[in-house]
Amino acid sequence: MTDLPAFAPIPAVLPSTVPFVGPEQIERESGQAFKARLGANELTLPPSPKVVGACARIAQTEAAFYPDPAAYDLRAALAAHTNLAPENILVGEGIDALLGWIVRLFMAPGDVAVTSLGAYPTFNYHVAGAGAHAETVAYRNDAEDPKALAARVREMNAKLVYFCNPDNPMGSWHDAVAVQEFIDSIPETCLVLLDEAYAEFAPGGVIPANAFVRPNLIRLRTFSKAYGLAGLRVGYAMGSPRIIGGFDKIRNHFGVNRLAQAAALAALEDQAHMNETVATIAKGRERIAAIARANGLTPLRSATNFVTIDCGQDGAFAKRLLAEIVARRVFIRMPGPEGLNRCIRVSVGRDDEIDLFEQILPDCLRAARSL
Amino acid sequence: MTDLPAFAPIPAVLPSTVPFVGPEQIERESGQAFKARLGANELTLPPSPKVVGACARIAQTEAAFYPDPAAYDLRAALAAHTNLAPENILVGEGIDALLGWIVRLFMAPGDVAVTSLGAYPTFNYHVAGAGAHAETVAYRNDAEDPKALAARVREMNAKLVYFCNPDNPMGSWHDAVAVQEFIDSIPETCLVLLDEAYAEFAPGGVIPANAFVRPNLIRLRTFSKAYGLAGLRVGYAMGSPRIIGGFDKIRNHFGVNRLAQAAALAALEDQAHMNETVATIAKGRERIAAIARANGLTPLRSATNFVTIDCGQDGAFAKRLLAEIVARRVFIRMPGPEGLNRCIRVSVGRDDEIDLFEQILPDCLRAARSL
Repeated sequence: MTDLPAFAPIPAVLPSTVPFVGPEQIERESGQAFKARLGANELTLPPSPKVVGACARIAQTEAAFYPDPAAYDLRAALAAHTNLAPENILVGEGIDALLGWIVRLFMAPGDVAVTSLGAYPTFNYHVAGAGAHAETVAYRNDAEDPKALAARVREMNAKLVYFCNPDNPMGSWHDAVAVQEFIDSIPETCLVLLDEAYAEFAPGGVIPANAFVRPNLIRLRTFSKAYGLAGLRVGYAMGSPRIIGGFDKIRNHFGVNRLAQAAALAALEDQAHMNETVATIAKGRERIAAIARANGLTPLRSATNFVTIDCGQDGAFAKRLLAEIVARRVFIRMPGPEGLNRCIRVSVGRDDEIDLFEQILPDCLRAARSL
Repeated sequence: MTDLPAFAPIPAVLPSTVPFVGPEQIERESGQAFKARLGANELTLPPSPKVVGACARIAQTEAAFYPDPAAYDLRAALAAHTNLAPENILVGEGIDALLGWIVRLFMAPGDVAVTSLGAYPTFNYHVAGAGAHAETVAYRNDAEDPKALAARVREMNAKLVYFCNPDNPMGSWHDAVAVQEFIDSIPETCLVLLDEAYAEFAPGGVIPANAFVRPNLIRLRTFSKAYGLAGLRVGYAMGSPRIIGGFDKIRNHFGVNRLAQAAALAALEDQAHMNETVATIAKGRERIAAIARANGLTPLRSATNFVTIDCGQDGAFAKRLLAEIVARRVFIRMPGPEGLNRCIRVSVGRDDEIDLFEQILPDCLRAARSL
């Protein structure tokens, strides 16, 4: 096979990879459908009826029209919602895409980004795609370690630092004061990516006020979690007008499709539905924690829509347990790094999905222990 | 205002821009809604009822689920449709996104791409985004000039060459034999991007067989034109497994949303609807051509869903005419470069939209001539 035309030097040495294997692929490979989808921190509750209505209406009347590259209506609504100006807000095709644009806007080959070992892998994927390097800092007490991250930023003269609050995959959090102190401890030459995908699930005092804007801060939010629109791919970034405007140098302007913009707008306008969802998730989180405890496991505290469960043994045991659970057609995932990998991570799904998890867990534990 | 944190060197020197100003923005700036949307080569006909049904169904049942990053079902259906293997096909968030991934996969800073002066600007935008340079070759007889493009590729040792057949913005085309000869005349070190966005509108003998695969060829198709789904953002690339697999080094795996995948699949399965659409468009094209002739203008022949109309004078005149048309709330566009800019470009819309164009054109011509 010819190796011409040649890939450019940076991608030439990168692997072809997918940051996450989708549950659909596991289903195809096993030949069995999942009965519960508790692995991707999706919401498995129905979206707002207003979202469904907006999708049907736009599909009928405007499917043929290119989306508005400015996402004007959604951006205006988000500005009103966050008490910021539209110039502070960029809508993107999910946080995944926003991470990619941020890396392209700020990182050159050889530059360094700092993140936590075990944090969101798509960030590292994009950093590698820029020919840059992701330095990792260990979690401390199952949480990201702001002081160690800041120290590493200074040590490496990093261009970007990624911080997720509340955190995935551990569900832990820092309070808003600590987050602001962390941000203000980062040199002005380094951009802080504050991933707040789980913001809506967090208790009071965890999320800095939206008015907390810094020249070297970009905050990421999403419609994929509390608004239940992961399938639609809409996220947004909040930051200084200089940075927000900078995305127009490189982004795919027509990337957020017309249905997605309309669906996100409808979801945003139905705060009652979102608040009910968050309350439902909080109950589900308690239930999963209780199931874990009833089975002798230790649920970690969570400010998200999932519960990370300490299985009390090593990574090999947690991995066996996960395999038993997945074999019983319940999709879950687990953290990768040593230390964190004593845990499994269970997203809060519908009641019937949690029922199934409760039902199979004792058997799975017996099987994992007997191997 | 601080200029820290610094943008990376390549984006730092790029302008913040939007390759196309959307009609919504023109409406917002003028304070007047368009009555006819004939400027973006969109279809303004309704999509297949199966598409509408799929969108409503997925919004109701699967909005909360992340899309399948492999787009397995759609890719399999496209493989069957094109008589290729799934490994020959990549689904992306519109041709715009695919162009971006291609440029990132093949171009390094300082590399050269070749395209025609006046061809699709989003390609040039992505080339600039890679810190590379787009060399342009003039149209010849209102068509892309394969020999001149090939000569420039050799002269510049170009990494990419862009060729659109049938062509936008002129509507012209080369036959399949000429296209294949062009591709085979390009050195194996240079990738040919064959943009076939308008393939479904072309007469027989214009589109090379799908089986025409080359190691240095990537063909781009879309659901935005004949399938009428520009608002959904789904395109696909056909190429060698090496290149198709290479995209997994850098692409945004979750970029094609769940509704878009389902809508495209439904559209693909309704070939009858697509064929009716193409027939309707052919009639509309004839009608626009007749309107142009009745007003003393010269429609160019077109193998697309638009008609490019030679206004018989210079660019200044065509620009005045376009302004008169847009002021009467009919959205159209025109080619930019000297020589091509004697023309305006009118997409085939619904009958009522063409009616309006017919109705206003004489007045617009009078006004443009009297200025």
